[in-house]
Amino acid sequence: MFNEIDIMDDKMREECGVFGIYAPGSNVAQLTYYGLYALQHRGQESAGIAVSNGKIIRGEKGMGLVSEVFHDTSKFDRLQGQAAVGHVRYSTSGSSLLVNAQPLLVRSRNGFLAIVHNGNLVNGRELRLELEDEGSIFQATTDSEVVAHLIARSGEKDVVDALKKSLPRLRGAYSLILMTPEKLVGLRDPHGIRPLSLGKTANGYVLASETCAFDTVGAEFVRDIEPGEMVVIDKDGVHAQRYTENKIHSLCAFEFIYFARPDSNLHGRNVHMVRKRLGRRLAEEHPVEADIVTGVPDSSLSAASGVAEQMGLPYELGFVKNRYIGRTFIQPSQEIRDLGVRLKLNPVRQIVEGKRVVMVDDSIVRGTTSTRIIEMLRNAGAKEVHVRISSPPVTSSCFYGIDTSTSGELIGAQMNVDEIAKYIGADSLGFLSEEGMLESMNLPVEGFCTACFSGRYPIEVACKKSGKLLEYEEDDGGCGGCGVHI
Amino acid sequence: MFNEIDIMDDKMREECGVFGIYAPGSNVAQLTYYGLYALQHRGQESAGIAVSNGKIIRGEKGMGLVSEVFHDTSKFDRLQGQAAVGHVRYSTSGSSLLVNAQPLLVRSRNGFLAIVHNGNLVNGRELRLELEDEGSIFQATTDSEVVAHLIARSGEKDVVDALKKSLPRLRGAYSLILMTPEKLVGLRDPHGIRPLSLGKTANGYVLASETCAFDTVGAEFVRDIEPGEMVVIDKDGVHAQRYTENKIHSLCAFEFIYFARPDSNLHGRNVHMVRKRLGRRLAEEHPVEADIVTGVPDSSLSAASGVAEQMGLPYELGFVKNRYIGRTFIQPSQEIRDLGVRLKLNPVRQIVEGKRVVMVDDSIVRGTTSTRIIEMLRNAGAKEVHVRISSPPVTSSCFYGIDTSTSGELIGAQMNVDEIAKYIGADSLGFLSEEGMLESMNLPVEGFCTACFSGRYPIEVACKKSGKLLEYEEDDGGCGGCGVHI
Amino acid sequence: MFNEIDIMDDKMREECGVFGIYAPGSNVAQLTYYGLYALQHRGQESAGIAVSNGKIIRGEKGMGLVSEVFHDTSKFDRLQGQAAVGHVRYSTSGSSLLVNAQPLLVRSRNGFLAIVHNGNLVNGRELRLELEDEGSIFQATTDSEVVAHLIARSGEKDVVDALKKSLPRLRGAYSLILMTPEKLVGLRDPHGIRPLSLGKTANGYVLASETCAFDTVGAEFVRDIEPGEMVVIDKDGVHAQRYTENKIHSLCAFEFIYFARPDSNLHGRNVHMVRKRLGRRLAEEHPVEADIVTGVPDSSLSAASGVAEQMGLPYELGFVKNRYIGRTFIQPSQEIRDLGVRLKLNPVRQIVEGKRVVMVDDSIVRGTTSTRIIEMLRNAGAKEVHVRISSPPVTSSCFYGIDTSTSGELIGAQMNVDEIAKYIGADSLGFLSEEGMLESMNLPVEGFCTACFSGRYPIEVACKKSGKLLEYEEDDGGCGGCGVHI
Amino acid sequence: MFNEIDIMDDKMREECGVFGIYAPGSNVAQLTYYGLYALQHRGQESAGIAVSNGKIIRGEKGMGLVSEVFHDTSKFDRLQGQAAVGHVRYSTSGSSLLVNAQPLLVRSRNGFLAIVHNGNLVNGRELRLELEDEGSIFQATTDSEVVAHLIARSGEKDVVDALKKSLPRLRGAYSLILMTPEKLVGLRDPHGIRPLSLGKTANGYVLASETCAFDTVGAEFVRDIEPGEMVVIDKDGVHAQRYTENKIHSLCAFEFIYFARPDSNLHGRNVHMVRKRLGRRLAEEHPVEADIVTGVPDSSLSAASGVAEQMGLPYELGFVKNRYIGRTFIQPSQEIRDLGVRLKLNPVRQIVEGKRVVMVDDSIVRGTTSTRIIEMLRNAGAKEVHVRISSPPVTSSCFYGIDTSTSGELIGAQMNVDEIAKYIGADSLGFLSEEGMLESMNLPVEGFCTACFSGRYPIEVACKKSGKLLEYEEDDGGCGGCGVHI
Repeated sequence: MFNEIDIMDDKMREECGVFGIYAPGSNVAQLTYYGLYALQHRGQESAGIAVSNGKIIRGEKGMGLVSEVFHDTSKFDRLQGQAAVGHVRYSTSGSSLLVNAQPLLVRSRNGFLAIVHNGNLVNGRELRLELEDEGSIFQATTDSEVVAHLIARSGEKDVVDALKKSLPRLRGAYSLILMTPEKLVGLRDPHGIRPLSLGKTANGYVLASETCAFDTVGAEFVRDIEPGEMVVIDKDGVHAQRYTENKIHSLCAFEFIYFARPDSNLHGRNVHMVRKRLGRRLAEEHPVEADIVTGVPDSSLSAASGVAEQMGLPYELGFVKNRYIGRTFIQPSQEIRDLGVRLKLNPVRQIVEGKRVVMVDDSIVRGTTSTRIIEMLRNAGAKEVHVRISSPPVTSSCFYGIDTSTSGELIGAQMNVDEIAKYIGADSLGFLSEEGMLESMNLPVEGFCTACFSGRYPIEVACKKSGKLLEYEEDDGGCGGCGVHI
Repeated sequence: MFNEIDIMDDKMREECGVFGIYAPGSNVAQLTYYGLYALQHRGQESAGIAVSNGKIIRGEKGMGLVSEVFHDTSKFDRLQGQAAVGHVRYSTSGSSLLVNAQPLLVRSRNGFLAIVHNGNLVNGRELRLELEDEGSIFQATTDSEVVAHLIARSGEKDVVDALKKSLPRLRGAYSLILMTPEKLVGLRDPHGIRPLSLGKTANGYVLASETCAFDTVGAEFVRDIEPGEMVVIDKDGVHAQRYTENKIHSLCAFEFIYFARPDSNLHGRNVHMVRKRLGRRLAEEHPVEADIVTGVPDSSLSAASGVAEQMGLPYELGFVKNRYIGRTFIQPSQEIRDLGVRLKLNPVRQIVEGKRVVMVDDSIVRGTTSTRIIEMLRNAGAKEVHVRISSPPVTSSCFYGIDTSTSGELIGAQMNVDEIAKYIGADSLGFLSEEGMLESMNLPVEGFCTACFSGRYPIEVACKKSGKLLEYEEDDGGCGGCGVHI
Repeated sequence: MFNEIDIMDDKMREECGVFGIYAPGSNVAQLTYYGLYALQHRGQESAGIAVSNGKIIRGEKGMGLVSEVFHDTSKFDRLQGQAAVGHVRYSTSGSSLLVNAQPLLVRSRNGFLAIVHNGNLVNGRELRLELEDEGSIFQATTDSEVVAHLIARSGEKDVVDALKKSLPRLRGAYSLILMTPEKLVGLRDPHGIRPLSLGKTANGYVLASETCAFDTVGAEFVRDIEPGEMVVIDKDGVHAQRYTENKIHSLCAFEFIYFARPDSNLHGRNVHMVRKRLGRRLAEEHPVEADIVTGVPDSSLSAASGVAEQMGLPYELGFVKNRYIGRTFIQPSQEIRDLGVRLKLNPVRQIVEGKRVVMVDDSIVRGTTSTRIIEMLRNAGAKEVHVRISSPPVTSSCFYGIDTSTSGELIGAQMNVDEIAKYIGADSLGFLSEEGMLESMNLPVEGFCTACFSGRYPIEVACKKSGKLLEYEEDDGGCGGCGVHI
Repeated sequence: MFNEIDIMDDKMREECGVFGIYAPGSNVAQLTYYGLYALQHRGQESAGIAVSNGKIIRGEKGMGLVSEVFHDTSKFDRLQGQAAVGHVRYSTSGSSLLVNAQPLLVRSRNGFLAIVHNGNLVNGRELRLELEDEGSIFQATTDSEVVAHLIARSGEKDVVDALKKSLPRLRGAYSLILMTPEKLVGLRDPHGIRPLSLGKTANGYVLASETCAFDTVGAEFVRDIEPGEMVVIDKDGVHAQRYTENKIHSLCAFEFIYFARPDSNLHGRNVHMVRKRLGRRLAEEHPVEADIVTGVPDSSLSAASGVAEQMGLPYELGFVKNRYIGRTFIQPSQEIRDLGVRLKLNPVRQIVEGKRVVMVDDSIVRGTTSTRIIEMLRNAGAKEVHVRISSPPVTSSCFYGIDTSTSGELIGAQMNVDEIAKYIGADSLGFLSEEGMLESMNLPVEGFCTACFSGRYPIEVACKKSGKLLEYEEDDGGCGGCGVHI
């Protein structure tokens, strides 16, 4: 039998969500708090908020959900000001340390600075070693700390000048928000791998990883930050500038497929609608005779309803997800696992019994969840289980801020579709084609990073052996760290 | 503007979920813990587990979710045994005290006894006063304590005999599980207002408010406990008996409409399927020209998909619900509320903009949530909002364990349908008819309690002025308490 | 080697401290909170406060120290009123359950009632069984619950009348404070085994186990409550009455020797001064050639300074006690214990090295602490260790509310003085004589309970085999429970 | 009336305690935990432990007492190794941030490094600004971070070489322990202002601020680290070396007077014994006719017993200190303060009433505590109160790691002895002379820093206006920070 809890977590993981606000006269700390709630799906390991009162910057951060870190109002007492940045973080267990929680607060010759970061530098380790050689000390393993060092060593007093000098040294994915006592700076890497958008409130401006955070705080969407663009927000308003002429839209395709909240818009497209289109196309590419269509909650429900509509089949509730499974859940003992406890996901027998079921999911990473879910459907009486995946097979690791497994664990890198179908126990299996995926997104084909499907990395990585993050504690000589080594 | 958090909670509230297991050789405490997870939707205020080792009974309980009360395994160390009972509870704030958390553990001439209870006695206050006059002391305001006193005062040593003597004095709704060191007893009131079912595991038997708890612990459904029936489970197996000849099936209709988890079965019917049928019938009764159908998450989604299918309209994701809003959420300040923060529910502009929207919900109690949601849809650009409710108007208070508001607050008791439509700002409004509801449930029409729709109370209540629960702290002379007075 | 932490706790343990206040216009909840701080030495397991606002009674209680249970002001928000009672409790681990925390709050035909209790009924188990036979249910194992049942069953509506009818059935030690919505009642058992005093504040009156609580809340001492006396405090002031003609002063001698805080007065005598006199007399009875006198902190320091003065020897700091060892201290592993960690108590080498040390302690119960401390002194270089104990050998268990070990564990019941000296490794050992003790207290000789030294129990106990408290969980047929059996 | 809680805290405050151990084969994390318990009096704000397993360094730290930060054993699971360092910290509220908790863990070209620090650099701010100008970033306000930067920028790969190059730049007080994966380094500044001693265990060596930590972990005292000396401990044992020829013994006199635990030895002298001698000399210098001598608990008790012996007067318990006042104590309301609540310290009326009392304290800083205590003694009936202080008047701020108030608040800098006596309400007042203090310490007169009494600073400080620590959050242009500005 299975350890249900672990097996049910076979998903890629986003690293972070970032939020910033410049709005004198508003309670910026509380607005950031609400904004982070809307971004919580992007990271549940730690949360933090820093506030500038125009002169100094103060912050609070901690391990856990936003609601846990800021469980009473007392933490907000120190956080009065005109601008704020916030961060939610997920990470692999090795670096799951408070020291890595963001915002990073530093003081340097540039004065006080707060930094939040979403993404992953592929040359992070290189830069660290170079900086160490120059006499820098590191207290954490975040890319934010690398950025802070580059700024401090740039020789430029103004943070914008310092950034212009430093950014060319960065290679990889980064959507950054920086805050000095006087201003807020938001920028995206030249490929725009991670999203970042600009919104407007009554008193000022907001920046956020996803537009759903704007809805939450009552802000209006203005526009996406462009790849290679930097916006500076201060008492004179918003000033946009390009810090590089390079600009290749390479938004991570998985933001559409899985990461983003369905009510967010990316590139002006609503995520739920795109997912429905992915489902429709998937149904076209892989038709099947069946009785009902069901999705694996919650991320696959939009695609599943698209599949159902296209196939002309009823879209049914094949599974109920338990909403109360907390992060501190007590693991069942072996005896209890053998009883087949079904805590997280329960198939609905009366719905699937005797039926030919089309089961829609958004991705297969290691294949463990699919195996388990199909088994559950069969135990509940499903006659046939046809699996349809609203993305292509994941065959390559991500080096831009997503925690895929290492290639060795990626079932898509080890088996062909028939083998996978057999392995997971499906009667049939269909993945959406890369072409179908891109067309469904209805955006210029060159607009996406599809490295994990295609192995075509928009930003070169020298060593692709490892998908692991650098652990602060481990002195890995060579190709460890962020998986990249020159 | 609104206090979103409170307004969004305009729902009837279930009081409790109960679970019991007799399974020597199993880790009964942990199985109860998993079973309570599956019943968590029935009550989030407190949770508790008591275990019998054959000689004595020990227990742990506390305020909060199951995952909070049992946040580490150390609480299970004392809880080894052969049988267990568990409880989750919701209550109005006045009685939100640890002393009311269950299981109730007592020692009397009948020895050790643990009791868990789902329902509400309409003569609870009467019985309390009688028992006080006889010299009893009360430490809480639960009906379980009344039952314990009656048993202790019955003069019968055996708990089954004591129950037979005591139960005729109870009037109202009660699904009870009692545990002595040697046995487990489950019973339902003669009207069967609250559900209770029997299941089987490898090592023994389980009782639970809903069948989804059986799936969770790997048990097989055996059958529902009958109204007026008592089952005794001990080392000799299960022994069923009737403790009264009276038996009128009056299952609370709202168990189907709203309370039960969609993967549970009631009367052998899957809840999700019934809700879909309610939706279909609703669409038949109140057709409308529109573009899309959407449900208010999570409880209305099944009905909404039924409406969509029947209307031949696309079923869309009109709202996204934030899954991370905890119970300890910090309330927004007025300034922030004025910004229109949308934390719990966010309408998806790209889906509803310019559309004629059919918005399906399962009930309207005070009307506050509907008003707010419709406003949100309009702000997001909906051209028309047609509200369809998958139950009849709630016109009367419940005295059987549901926290409806008092009649004075029930919008269905104060206004007719047109007035309500105007009040909540709907372009049209349709409630499912009582007839339609009962036919959709596809069960004998006499099988349900529909008092809150019809005012026809299956068990007489003398005073219907108040829907409030007795607060321990308040010495209300006369018709306070459970709202009933002779 | 030893498990230092456990071994260092070889002390008799007081069960409880009680506090009550009737003072309309004062913040009675906060005053009770401060009063409980002053009584914290009498019990560290649980704490609770109940407040009457003239109509109803509300309470808060929890496991842990006063500072832990009431760690923020929010708990006081509900607790506004004119009168309050508070309680701190120690108990053996078996009954260390929240359900046993006090105040006990009940509602009966006498209305709302809060009870706090210090002492132990020797016929508690008898009364429980009788009450169970009459149909009472018990939810805890405290004597307070027995008292509440007797009141409720007395047939009297007024709580004072009910008490007069009930108290004759109680046998044992009890200092009780009861609170109805309108009044506060304080009373002591006819032997006055546990202390209870009356004080006066600007707005009303206070009752407390020890007078140090009066100092803490700025109250003036009025007088001790007499054995067999009951005082009723309400809007008309204080009304004293005797509820029995029996009255034999039998104050527990250990209140002077060990339990009470040195700044409290008992029978009008300051506790520190009495302890010094005990020390002087001890020195007279057991003179010795030595270099320095030292006490085992903290309880023996007063007696030690008396010994030093009488012997004409310098009173030195032989040990330093670590003030930061919390209740949640992590136990050292075996390896670390073998290193001889000295966390709680550290002998001061430069003071004891090469010296003939008189080590004064207030009692020897099992002998484990003495053994360990003497070994520590020798390791620190003491040439001789002469142990002087400021009380007679403890030879009998206490049944009146003190947790001595069972007789089998009492070293004074198993060995004579020479054997004990040898066992604990002392060069000489002297216990204060019972005569010397009573004379030092400078009070009528008949004024004390000395049962633990003499076996002369002022209140008869039928079975003295066991010193254990009744555990709720254990169904001990026969002589278990409170150690008493008819 | 007074806010008792604050007023009772008129003491100088030590900043830190440090502990280090190199002992392969021992549970170094737990031994450090126990060692920190013994040093807890030196700092209660935060605590932390870092462990090296020979390859990498891991750490845990948090706000609060050792028992709070390490409240369960799970924190130790990650902390396995051969060497460890630990730290307890007190600080002014401004910098009371987790980011300032130690050990500081960094990674630089010198590899992993953990640093703990006791003291204060007088040129800390200068060095920070220089380092910032060179491109360093600071995340905290501790001197440890300055040291880490200097090491990383020294250009030396070996940490010992790096230290030799860096230490000459430091000015001020520092007792440092550094840990690399392979070794432990302990060193004291050339004046030896803060203590640091070397001890030996079965498996290795320990370093600690005070020798009482050696007793606690079962280690033997070897010797004090010399001013200007550095000891390196690794698999080859202990290697001592001088890193500077400068060496002027200037141990902080207050370590003897107040900071150190009485069972510690400094310069080979037991602290309690020295305090007694201070008391004897104080009595010689300021004799008085009186009845009893009492000390203000806890720190003045040793000196008070010396005074009593010299004066031939009884040493009595004039005050009882409440041991249960936690750090999270709820402040009394004004109404309750007006009642004169005496939570922390209670004078014993029966002891002081009608008496001429000699009240011994170790220092007077602002004078607020003395005023309050004398008033309490008079309210308790003391006929006369003669105050004797076992140190000279504090007239100058400390810049070497002690939180005195600013000079403007030092009563000794504002008034002469007669004026102070009048201000605090004493019948007579005597301070120990500086001469008497030094002679009582019985050590070479040049051996101490007496700057706070004499204004003779052993290490030059350019600006003495402020005694405040640098707050990270405040961008104080000019003479703020550590109170020193060039």
